[in-house]
Amino acid sequence: MKAVVYEENGQIVLTDRPMPEILDERDAIVQVTLTTICSSDIHVKHGAVPRAVPGTILGHEFVGRVVETGSAVKKIKPGDRVAVNVETFCGECFFCKRGFVNNCTDEHGGWALGCRIDGGQAGYARIPFADNGLTVIPDNVTDEQALFNGDILSTGYWAAKIGEIRPADTVAVIGAGPTGLCTMLCARLYTPARIIAIDTDEYRLNLAKEKGLADITLVPGREDIEGKIRELTDGRGADTVFEVAGGKDTFQTAWKIARPNAVVVIVAMYEEVQTLPLPDMYGKNLVFKTGGVDGSYCQEIMDLTACGKLDAGFLITHRCRLDEIMEAYEVFENKKDHVIKYAVTP
Amino acid sequence: MKAVVYEENGQIVLTDRPMPEILDERDAIVQVTLTTICSSDIHVKHGAVPRAVPGTILGHEFVGRVVETGSAVKKIKPGDRVAVNVETFCGECFFCKRGFVNNCTDEHGGWALGCRIDGGQAGYARIPFADNGLTVIPDNVTDEQALFNGDILSTGYWAAKIGEIRPADTVAVIGAGPTGLCTMLCARLYTPARIIAIDTDEYRLNLAKEKGLADITLVPGREDIEGKIRELTDGRGADTVFEVAGGKDTFQTAWKIARPNAVVVIVAMYEEVQTLPLPDMYGKNLVFKTGGVDGSYCQEIMDLTACGKLDAGFLITHRCRLDEIMEAYEVFENKKDHVIKYAVTP
Amino acid sequence: MKAVVYEENGQIVLTDRPMPEILDERDAIVQVTLTTICSSDIHVKHGAVPRAVPGTILGHEFVGRVVETGSAVKKIKPGDRVAVNVETFCGECFFCKRGFVNNCTDEHGGWALGCRIDGGQAGYARIPFADNGLTVIPDNVTDEQALFNGDILSTGYWAAKIGEIRPADTVAVIGAGPTGLCTMLCARLYTPARIIAIDTDEYRLNLAKEKGLADITLVPGREDIEGKIRELTDGRGADTVFEVAGGKDTFQTAWKIARPNAVVVIVAMYEEVQTLPLPDMYGKNLVFKTGGVDGSYCQEIMDLTACGKLDAGFLITHRCRLDEIMEAYEVFENKKDHVIKYAVTP
Amino acid sequence: MKAVVYEENGQIVLTDRPMPEILDERDAIVQVTLTTICSSDIHVKHGAVPRAVPGTILGHEFVGRVVETGSAVKKIKPGDRVAVNVETFCGECFFCKRGFVNNCTDEHGGWALGCRIDGGQAGYARIPFADNGLTVIPDNVTDEQALFNGDILSTGYWAAKIGEIRPADTVAVIGAGPTGLCTMLCARLYTPARIIAIDTDEYRLNLAKEKGLADITLVPGREDIEGKIRELTDGRGADTVFEVAGGKDTFQTAWKIARPNAVVVIVAMYEEVQTLPLPDMYGKNLVFKTGGVDGSYCQEIMDLTACGKLDAGFLITHRCRLDEIMEAYEVFENKKDHVIKYAVTP
Repeated sequence: MKAVVYEENGQIVLTDRPMPEILDERDAIVQVTLTTICSSDIHVKHGAVPRAVPGTILGHEFVGRVVETGSAVKKIKPGDRVAVNVETFCGECFFCKRGFVNNCTDEHGGWALGCRIDGGQAGYARIPFADNGLTVIPDNVTDEQALFNGDILSTGYWAAKIGEIRPADTVAVIGAGPTGLCTMLCARLYTPARIIAIDTDEYRLNLAKEKGLADITLVPGREDIEGKIRELTDGRGADTVFEVAGGKDTFQTAWKIARPNAVVVIVAMYEEVQTLPLPDMYGKNLVFKTGGVDGSYCQEIMDLTACGKLDAGFLITHRCRLDEIMEAYEVFENKKDHVIKYAVTP
Repeated sequence: MKAVVYEENGQIVLTDRPMPEILDERDAIVQVTLTTICSSDIHVKHGAVPRAVPGTILGHEFVGRVVETGSAVKKIKPGDRVAVNVETFCGECFFCKRGFVNNCTDEHGGWALGCRIDGGQAGYARIPFADNGLTVIPDNVTDEQALFNGDILSTGYWAAKIGEIRPADTVAVIGAGPTGLCTMLCARLYTPARIIAIDTDEYRLNLAKEKGLADITLVPGREDIEGKIRELTDGRGADTVFEVAGGKDTFQTAWKIARPNAVVVIVAMYEEVQTLPLPDMYGKNLVFKTGGVDGSYCQEIMDLTACGKLDAGFLITHRCRLDEIMEAYEVFENKKDHVIKYAVTP
Repeated sequence: MKAVVYEENGQIVLTDRPMPEILDERDAIVQVTLTTICSSDIHVKHGAVPRAVPGTILGHEFVGRVVETGSAVKKIKPGDRVAVNVETFCGECFFCKRGFVNNCTDEHGGWALGCRIDGGQAGYARIPFADNGLTVIPDNVTDEQALFNGDILSTGYWAAKIGEIRPADTVAVIGAGPTGLCTMLCARLYTPARIIAIDTDEYRLNLAKEKGLADITLVPGREDIEGKIRELTDGRGADTVFEVAGGKDTFQTAWKIARPNAVVVIVAMYEEVQTLPLPDMYGKNLVFKTGGVDGSYCQEIMDLTACGKLDAGFLITHRCRLDEIMEAYEVFENKKDHVIKYAVTP
Repeated sequence: MKAVVYEENGQIVLTDRPMPEILDERDAIVQVTLTTICSSDIHVKHGAVPRAVPGTILGHEFVGRVVETGSAVKKIKPGDRVAVNVETFCGECFFCKRGFVNNCTDEHGGWALGCRIDGGQAGYARIPFADNGLTVIPDNVTDEQALFNGDILSTGYWAAKIGEIRPADTVAVIGAGPTGLCTMLCARLYTPARIIAIDTDEYRLNLAKEKGLADITLVPGREDIEGKIRELTDGRGADTVFEVAGGKDTFQTAWKIARPNAVVVIVAMYEEVQTLPLPDMYGKNLVFKTGGVDGSYCQEIMDLTACGKLDAGFLITHRCRLDEIMEAYEVFENKKDHVIKYAVTP
């Protein structure tokens, strides 16, 4: 089958690879029906993800149809249409029991697909712990609507959940890229009074506004971000801040626009260390929540999609076939053509 | 001024009363611009509220304009358009500090207006603890939109808040009267997968559906309520149940349609004791939350209204002048003419 | 092997039964080293537990040594000293994932041992879902210290956890029997200012005081319980009330001694329906938490025991051999000889 | 009266100052009966607290007797023995209502005493918002037991509260100075399985162990802190880490010894910015809680002291008169003579 393989720092190729096989009784084999490119794939390509293993098939955000299951798989059945969770996890260890599946202590626990084990930019993929890692797609949900269920939508959902948003709060989201948009989408589930989207890309800000995700949009450099937010909040600052940009100054912006005792969720993956100016923020009593998605809520997200309360399908701005994916990588990595997300058909 | 006065069990009259005056430095005098009738007024009229004092002007749900403030009032100023909180509270006692303002230990703490002290079915009203009990109405909110802020909307907001609703949950609301509709309106702030409204009045159920408050409606007697809800929830039952009907069997229905470990919020005011069949519900591990509104969130509710996230104005189905209110009582008490709520202009 | 078997309403016998065998790959066989009698055994004997199946070996509170494990058992190994959880559960269903293992939807989920499947008043017992239902006993914990880990200590721990106790609170516990004493023991983990124990049995109250579990003891009938508690709490009532007696008036006492907005945990198993006087408690805004133990915390309890923070061994007031257990039942059921708990050696 | 006055960077003097007077109707005048030196006084002396105003009387941790109250003071009365809260706050603003009194928006809100307004290293002190800032000392609590109620004990209590400690957790406390010891004292209220104290000062570690505050003590440099803690926690790390040292490497130690998804509370006041190595901690999903004490729990702390559950009196290792305080400063600042805290009598 055709597959995108990570060869080494900076190199990925579309090549032929053998079909995957069941290796453990809890595995399932999924025929990929739709897959996509994630910014983490670009991080892997750049060699910025140390745990990524050369020779691995990329792709951790995809949907498909189950073709085979191991003998210990109970809930998932051949024929099921499924969304794949970016994280594989045992469901039984100390961390899994608390919902911290990102830190599952199994050797395949956490983000393995498309990084340490073969992923879904291919015709087929093997999914370990299939009962935990696959979410059945109901008939009234399309593949495109389900495509982001297990990765960026899970990330937005997790971020919003730990953001402690209360009705009538002011929420600021720094970064209106795919994950930032998903964060806004999920923050809305808690009905803040307003969501303020901050980005330098006005096209994306307009999209956020047009889709009803952001109430207010701000462009750094052109506007006084801190001042504007203070003005909107009786001088206090935002109740919850999501940092989804990972830019040069965005961490500093994040804590500055937060009100005292706010929650600042660091969703972005940084490539560099940051400065934490504790003397300057003394007495501001901020709570910083750092980390990567815990993919514990895929079923809830699918339920919300099925009943029309959550739909990330609009993120798909581009479509192509798997044999055209190298060009899609080029467009996506360089943010050409106002791309948000690709839907790639094997 | 004209005022509706509770005379005794079963008797209310529209009569003349002197203008109220400042009695304490924390008081304010409000000129009533819009008032309404609440089902609690009917309870008072019937003599079913023991603490109600004969001779008191009725009315605890109204908006107006501040005409005078006591010397210790700091936030509220003459000229402010305000919504009145059904509860008066000191803000400093053990209960107030925890947000349990319904149990404020001050002699005027809790529900006093229109019950133990003169209320707002009149031209003017005196409001104790004005800084706690008045919420300024922003320019872009109309009197009609703000009218329910301090009582039934506060009740729905409080109920939804203690209901522990999570995104994707199934919520059941028994009773689609004014408070039931407010409960649905506020439950939606937490984006459950579905709200199931249950009532014998199909007109009200249709209204709930038409306004986007209920996803599913069920009529007891005509449908198997327990069975239907089980069917919608993989056999489990509702995650949160709000009992806002106070009917003959509705308490029993409430716990039966709840899933194990659900939260059952008893919002209705009962006139009779209920049976709690603990042996039958053993192992179901239900949580019952009982009581009356804590009016601690009036500002949040006003903020949500101002930014377009919450609008209870549609509840107003009837309008009249204060001198027509006795007829309005007759219509409202007997649920004639598909009335939901009246807006009464002094 | 010798075993106590529930024959029918009111009848139990000590008789011979065949050794248990592995029936499912997740089972383990445990050689019982110490077992006990629980008040639920008395309920079963009396026919007050409808789901109890005649012919079943009684006993759901015991410790032992693993002698054999099924092929899918991963954490538990032959030779392990273990405490047995009263509840068997799959760990994977909707309820188990939320910690509500008492409502596990597996056919053997919830309380099955000694009720619907053979239990531990015998030489050996088969334990389904052994990885979930067995807790390894560390070397520095004795069998007697571990004996109550999986049932009454779990009950006290669960009750204290859902009781929302904060440091400096006033806690009232109605009932100073074995489970009431365990509830006090676990309530102390949250350091309330005071625990008030209420019982008609002064011997048990003295034990509670002597062991440092209760700060104040009250005897209904002899003292004005409501008045005393009000006096101790600035007129408010207890912050959390645990009803562990299940007596004739104890449910009514429970809500009356609670302060407004208190949590009232109903731990006792009632044989009769109760009256819930909602009109009388209107505005008191009580939260009632009902149900049976969720045995989700056995490992935490064992950790606390191992590090000396929790020791229920003192509950053992009587010891005997399995062949003397019929006499022990007689003593325990009739609360003779100041018995709290028996330790029975097969 | 005699008073210690902050003159400028590095200079404090014991000098004569006039008696304080009531300036606002919510003020009280307190005759100081016992006062102490806090490490924040040293920070002020060093000019490391920018908001500190030269000419101010130092001291924010003291007890006394009320001699006069303003006309709007309701709860506090002349003659009351009181502990003083380090923070003055209005009780009514956005932040105060949420318990974030450290961020009270009143001009005197937050830490003002002994910093921006005259404090308690003197014979008398004026206390703004007396009803919020004074806690009555019950007869059975001595001045020495109450001395730390409003500052370092409040800090330990606040830190423990936001630390999300559950029974059976492993807690690590970096720094066994006065505030670190208070943090351990308060962390114990939640009964973790073990408290690990980390400090380079073995005398203080021994004190922590001897007083039953620490179960395990570790000395950096001499022991592999990370390795030891991992060993004690099945390889995971501590569930909650309190950083109360503010040393050169202690922030880095704090996040490294935390398990994934731990809460890391930054209690120490830092004089330098820190490095936050987000790439290294990616996926560890840590929660950092920063800031200064919210003095919202003084009454609870006093209640716990009154009923014998919390006693910080042992921190007093040295006693002197106010006219000897300059020498006490010398001893305290240089940690001579194994000093923990001074009790100074005016």
